[in-house]
Amino acid sequence: MLARAIRARIEALLPANLGTLAARAQALRRRVKEAVTDPMARRRLWERLLQGPFRHAVLAGAEAEAERILSHELKVGQRQPAGRVALIGCGPGDPDLLTLKALQHLEAADILVIDRLVDPRILDYARRDAKRIFVGKDPHGGSTAQSEINRILVREAQAGKLVARLKGGDPFVFGRAAEEMGALQSAGISVEVVPGVTAAHACAARVGLPVTSRERMRQFSVVTGATAKGMPGLDWAALAAPEAAFAVYMGVGNASGIRANLLSAGASPATPVVIVENGTRANERAVATTLADLTDCVSQLGLHAPAVIFVGLDWADAGLARPDHVSAYRRQPSPHRRAEEPQPGTAEARP
Amino acid sequence: MLARAIRARIEALLPANLGTLAARAQALRRRVKEAVTDPMARRRLWERLLQGPFRHAVLAGAEAEAERILSHELKVGQRQPAGRVALIGCGPGDPDLLTLKALQHLEAADILVIDRLVDPRILDYARRDAKRIFVGKDPHGGSTAQSEINRILVREAQAGKLVARLKGGDPFVFGRAAEEMGALQSAGISVEVVPGVTAAHACAARVGLPVTSRERMRQFSVVTGATAKGMPGLDWAALAAPEAAFAVYMGVGNASGIRANLLSAGASPATPVVIVENGTRANERAVATTLADLTDCVSQLGLHAPAVIFVGLDWADAGLARPDHVSAYRRQPSPHRRAEEPQPGTAEARP
Repeated sequence: MLARAIRARIEALLPANLGTLAARAQALRRRVKEAVTDPMARRRLWERLLQGPFRHAVLAGAEAEAERILSHELKVGQRQPAGRVALIGCGPGDPDLLTLKALQHLEAADILVIDRLVDPRILDYARRDAKRIFVGKDPHGGSTAQSEINRILVREAQAGKLVARLKGGDPFVFGRAAEEMGALQSAGISVEVVPGVTAAHACAARVGLPVTSRERMRQFSVVTGATAKGMPGLDWAALAAPEAAFAVYMGVGNASGIRANLLSAGASPATPVVIVENGTRANERAVATTLADLTDCVSQLGLHAPAVIFVGLDWADAGLARPDHVSAYRRQPSPHRRAEEPQPGTAEARP
Repeated sequence: MLARAIRARIEALLPANLGTLAARAQALRRRVKEAVTDPMARRRLWERLLQGPFRHAVLAGAEAEAERILSHELKVGQRQPAGRVALIGCGPGDPDLLTLKALQHLEAADILVIDRLVDPRILDYARRDAKRIFVGKDPHGGSTAQSEINRILVREAQAGKLVARLKGGDPFVFGRAAEEMGALQSAGISVEVVPGVTAAHACAARVGLPVTSRERMRQFSVVTGATAKGMPGLDWAALAAPEAAFAVYMGVGNASGIRANLLSAGASPATPVVIVENGTRANERAVATTLADLTDCVSQLGLHAPAVIFVGLDWADAGLARPDHVSAYRRQPSPHRRAEEPQPGTAEARP
């Protein structure tokens, strides 16, 4: 079984007819080395040969076509290769939620430019000699300004490097990819965006909470719960509608403001809320509560970022049961009103 | 370089210290075979040993602990193993957008239950002897009722099989996972949900269109453009708001209804619209137009499902340029109003 698992994984991840390609590459080594003397240019050339039209021609047995492509590549291969940047969504934490495409870019990269939310285990997939630049927005200092990140990306790509810009989740969902793409486009640098599993979908999967359903939930939104200037301007009335279902990113720090805005806009205090902290990581915690108890739940349980707050979604609406690993939080009545129950709050199994 | 790429991929996908584990497994073969005679039960036992606490104990050098776990597993291993179901998001098409977790489930599965939108190349990752059951909702007949799909999943899991239920995109985003989870939970069968890259994020990455931005777009929604009963009931007023940004799934068949509802609710006819047909596949087409021209664009270009329609998102708003591979569609003035331009419509590069 171990052998089967290994064989399956290797087969899955390697190009078909690898042997043919390897034999052809072996026969070409000296010719390539003589034609292209710069080591980095040679590496790029081999990458193009082994992944591009040359490979397809060899594997299709089209010898004349393969030779034509090879001659051309050897001619242009001596030029300084162009750098490129891939903005890569690394998912919410669990390295198994990386896509194969992200893995391929990680393995090829010369330079890694790494956000704080990227799980360190993901870096194990990179080449050992790849340069690592940490630009995390650390809430306790140590962050790198966006303009500086942009400068790093442009500088490394202009030096001919393959740059992997690693971001948590999906690059386009609250990932500030637009700023980086803009800077790279202005500098004439090629950019590829590699989508990733965004935190809302990964956390929903962890707690078995469907974010859409055929009967009831025909729209699902992601919103940001924080901006540089504090509370974001959102369409609170639409979010407070009874049928609204959404996930708040970066919201636990503003839980009380989010609660107040939704209640003022007419949301029911009984609106279901599910919070997933450190979703897909070893220290994941998940709790079900209500909009009324949101602030207490966050403070009593000491929930911190990264966390996703789902509003308006409940297992019962989807005909499902709350999983055992999701606790339920209900605020205990205040001692001023019910002196016999003095605890401020508790996480407990649903009765 | 070929050797490096192969080594990197193998290293990445295999457990660390594999040699130690392989040696231990080799020494155990006869003992396991004698203790557990049923081949399927033995396969499950090996899976548990090689992936669970036994593996951790062996790799940590905790021999006594490893022996304790082994003895227990050999005792319970003779029982009929319990089947399980994984609801797996396979992404929008491109097999490279599979996650490593999806790949691992695919490789282990005894039974594949496959939706129409799952790319056939993804099935290459499964075991050759895995049984394939196609339950696609083919629009031209040949679909399987949801209740029948539920019955298949329950039946195969109750027979002790590992079932991989393969869905396009993410299982919880318009994937009808709730119905299947409900049926499995009612039958007492263990279910795991493996999230996937949903079509909206994959298509946005393909056309370089950020779905959120720090300046302007603080909310992004996905909505369905079709239900079993036709046009879905949506909060059209909220969707028609100037700052709304959303992606419509399954919407090209209802393009004219979507356009009419949004315009009636007050949306500007100039609202930007981007349509990506067959996103991430070889036959992908992408076009930029406006809400006013949505219906004409779909019919003139003959756009079909699967497609994602982005509304309210434009490259210019994110400070970016429209990529060259995205065409622009603008309806030509009607011949009744401008007799000198008789063409009904055309896809053209932006002037």
